[in-house]
Amino acid sequence: MDRYLVISSDGHAGPHAAAYRDYVDPGYRELFDVALPIQIEMTEQAAKSFLVADINREWRKGRDQELSGAWDAEVRDKVLDADGVAAEVLFPDGVTEMNAPPFGAGFSMSPEGVSADLQWAGCVAHNRWMAEFVSTAPERRIGLACIPVLWDVGRAVEGIRWSHENGLRGVIFPPRWGSHDAYHHTKYDPVWEICQDLGMPVHFHSGPAPFEEYFGPIPAPAGHAVQPGAMGTYISEVALWLVRPLTFMLWGGVFERFPKLKVALTEGTAIWVPEYLQLLEQRYSVTHYAQKLGDYRSHLSMSPANYFRRNVRVGASCMPRREAEMRHQIGVDTLMWGTDYPHPEGSWPYTRNQMHETFRDLPEDEIGKMLGGNAAAFYGVDTEKLAPLVARIGPEKRSFRTAADAVAAAERGSAPSPETQETA
Amino acid sequence: MDRYLVISSDGHAGPHAAAYRDYVDPGYRELFDVALPIQIEMTEQAAKSFLVADINREWRKGRDQELSGAWDAEVRDKVLDADGVAAEVLFPDGVTEMNAPPFGAGFSMSPEGVSADLQWAGCVAHNRWMAEFVSTAPERRIGLACIPVLWDVGRAVEGIRWSHENGLRGVIFPPRWGSHDAYHHTKYDPVWEICQDLGMPVHFHSGPAPFEEYFGPIPAPAGHAVQPGAMGTYISEVALWLVRPLTFMLWGGVFERFPKLKVALTEGTAIWVPEYLQLLEQRYSVTHYAQKLGDYRSHLSMSPANYFRRNVRVGASCMPRREAEMRHQIGVDTLMWGTDYPHPEGSWPYTRNQMHETFRDLPEDEIGKMLGGNAAAFYGVDTEKLAPLVARIGPEKRSFRTAADAVAAAERGSAPSPETQETA
Repeated sequence: MDRYLVISSDGHAGPHAAAYRDYVDPGYRELFDVALPIQIEMTEQAAKSFLVADINREWRKGRDQELSGAWDAEVRDKVLDADGVAAEVLFPDGVTEMNAPPFGAGFSMSPEGVSADLQWAGCVAHNRWMAEFVSTAPERRIGLACIPVLWDVGRAVEGIRWSHENGLRGVIFPPRWGSHDAYHHTKYDPVWEICQDLGMPVHFHSGPAPFEEYFGPIPAPAGHAVQPGAMGTYISEVALWLVRPLTFMLWGGVFERFPKLKVALTEGTAIWVPEYLQLLEQRYSVTHYAQKLGDYRSHLSMSPANYFRRNVRVGASCMPRREAEMRHQIGVDTLMWGTDYPHPEGSWPYTRNQMHETFRDLPEDEIGKMLGGNAAAFYGVDTEKLAPLVARIGPEKRSFRTAADAVAAAERGSAPSPETQETA
Repeated sequence: MDRYLVISSDGHAGPHAAAYRDYVDPGYRELFDVALPIQIEMTEQAAKSFLVADINREWRKGRDQELSGAWDAEVRDKVLDADGVAAEVLFPDGVTEMNAPPFGAGFSMSPEGVSADLQWAGCVAHNRWMAEFVSTAPERRIGLACIPVLWDVGRAVEGIRWSHENGLRGVIFPPRWGSHDAYHHTKYDPVWEICQDLGMPVHFHSGPAPFEEYFGPIPAPAGHAVQPGAMGTYISEVALWLVRPLTFMLWGGVFERFPKLKVALTEGTAIWVPEYLQLLEQRYSVTHYAQKLGDYRSHLSMSPANYFRRNVRVGASCMPRREAEMRHQIGVDTLMWGTDYPHPEGSWPYTRNQMHETFRDLPEDEIGKMLGGNAAAFYGVDTEKLAPLVARIGPEKRSFRTAADAVAAAERGSAPSPETQETA
C-alpha cells in the first residue's frame, strides 16, 4: 500500500439542539420543550464569555455547508474524503454551541446542577442519534456513547450493553466527578469489566474544568469583568483535569484487575506524557521519603507507567510537529492523531497540510502508526474493508518525504508530486 | 571560603499544641481549651488514616531530644550545626501531629470548615510564637508568618506589616482557595504590593489537597476502607495543587504589576519545572488553535515562563540527585535546597550524606547557589554575619569532589578526608 490509512481519533457529531427532541423518551419531551430555549440561551451566553464570538462567526462564514457534516452523513463523507481520513471516532457536540445534547449531556456530563434522570435522558437521546448516524457507514464511524457513570453503576452497565448492541464502539465518561466517588473506587469495577469484555474503550475528552475558578459564574453577570489571566490559566490547566481520572484508575489497580481495559484521553495534548510517566515511576519506586506513607503499591504488579503504556492511548488532536518529535518519549504506540472536525480549533480545512507539517520525513512505519495504525488496533477497525477507500483518498506515503522527493525530482528533472507542493 | 554557606529552604517549627495557649488572644482562650483535645484527637485520627503511625513512631524512637528542636532553640542550633546548615526558612507544623497551630492555622489554612476570625486567631498565635523563636538567633532563622489571605485583604495587609515589624521575613498563603476568589483576582493587589515593598517573599507549601477525593472523609469512619490507590494518587497529584496558585498569578499579571514580588513553592519537588515552563511558553505563543479564545495575553509584557525565572524560586526539600542533574532545565538560580527537619521524610539525621549524594562532582559555583547562594539572595541574608558560623560548620567544598579527592589521596598516599568517607 503506497497510501496511509488515516483514522481521526477526535471527531464531533450531533444534530441541531432542537432535533434531539425525536430521540428523547416521550416522557421527557415536555421538559425538553421548556429547557430547549434556556439551553440555547445559556450556551450562547457561555460562548460569549468564554469564546470570542466574532472569531467563531468569521471562521464559519461561507462554510455552513461543510460544517453541516456535523449531522449530515453525505456531507461528512465528502469532508473526510477531502481530508484523506478513512475513519474517525465520534464524540458529541458537533459545532459546539449549536449541537450539545439536551439536559447537560455531552462529553462533559457535569456531575452537578442536574439530576441523574435528566442527564441520563439526554445521554440516551444522543446515543440513539449516534447509533443511527454510524449506521450510515459503520466501517468509517467509530461512534461513542455518553455514559454518565457516576450516578448509578448498574444503569451504566446496562447503557454500555445497549450501546454495544446498537453499533457504538466505545464510551465517554465524565472527566470530573464533583462530590461523587472518584475513579479509584472499586464500586466502578462492573463498569470496567463490561467495557473490557465487550471491547469498548473508555474515553475522557478534554474541556471540562472548574470554570467558576477562572471566569467567575458562567454566564457572566452583566458588567462582570473576567479577571485578567482567566483564559491563560484555563488553557494551562485544562490537560490536568483530563488526566486526573486516569491517575486514580492507574493507582487504583483498575488495569491490574482488568488488564484488557482500554482508555483514551482525547484532545488534551500529549506533551505532558513523558513527565507524567516519570512521575508515576518515581512515585512507584520506594524511597526513604515515602516510607512514612506505608504500603501504597503492593496491589499493583507493575508500575502505573507500565499500565499506561499497555492500556492507554492519547487522542492527539491537531497534533503539532513538536509532539511528533517527542514521539519516542511519549510512545510511538501511544499516539493517535486526530482532526477535531468540525471545531474551529481543529485541522479542517487544512488537514492534509497539517498532517504533512507534523509528520514529514519521519520513518514510514511510525507515521503509519500515529496516523491510523494505532487507532485501528485500539478500536479493532476492519482495515480490509477500508482498503479500497484508503487506496482512493489516503495521503500518499511518498508525499511525506519532502526532502527525498525534492532530490529525486531534481534528479529526474520533474516537478514534485502535487501533495508535496501543497505542503511547501 | 573553602566551605559552603548552606541555607535550608524548608524547616518546620512550633511548640506543643497546648503551648500555643499563651500566644492566643485572651478572648479565644476559653474556646482554645475546648478545641484543644478535639484538635489533638482529630490530628491523631488523620495521622492514623493518612500516615503509618508505626513507621513514624519507629523513626522517632530515641530521637525525642533532637526532635525537640521543633521548639527548643538550643537543641535546634545543635541539629543545624551537625547538619552543616547555617540558616533556615521556618514553616509551622514542627513534628506534624504534635505541633499544629490552633484553629486550623498552619501552612494549609484550609479555606473551609472554619471561620475567618478563628483561623486568624490561630495564625496570630503562631506568628507571635515564631517571632519570639526567631529572635533567639535572627541571622539563622528566616521565620515565616501564616497569613490567611483569602478572607479579608485589609486584614492580611495589616498582618503582613505586623509580621515584618516583628522580625518575620516572609509569608505563607493557603495554596487552596475553596470557594474564595483565586489568586488571579486583582482584589489581592494590595497584598502583593506590601509583600513586594517590604521584601517579604510569598510561600506556598506542599501538602494540602482535596483529601476527601482520595481517602473519603478524614477522620475515616469506623470500618471505612480507604480505596486502593488513594495514597498513590495523592502523592502523584500533590505538586499539582501546590503549583495552581502560581499559575493563576503568572497569567493574572501579578508579576507584571509587581515586578519585584518574590514567590517560593516549597517541598513540591522540582522535576515538573521544565515541562511547566514549556507549557507556559506554548500557551503564550499564539497559535491557530488558540485564536477562538481571543486575546488572553496582551496584559503581559513577556511570557509567564519569564516571570517564573525572574520572580519564583523552588524550595527543593530533600532534593534528589536527579533534580540536580536537571538543574539547567529547571534553572540553577531557581533551586533552593532544603532539609525539611524535623519531618520524618526529611534528610535529617543524614543531611550531610544526602547533600553529598545529590551534589557530588558538580561545578562548585552551581553547588554554592543551590545549597545556599540562591536562598541568601532571595531572603537578603546577611552572609557576612554568618561567615564565622559557616567557617565552623559549613561542609567543605573539597568533600564534594569525591573522585578528584580519591585520586589526590591516592597520589599523596593518604586517606581521604572524613567527609569523603562519610559519603562513600
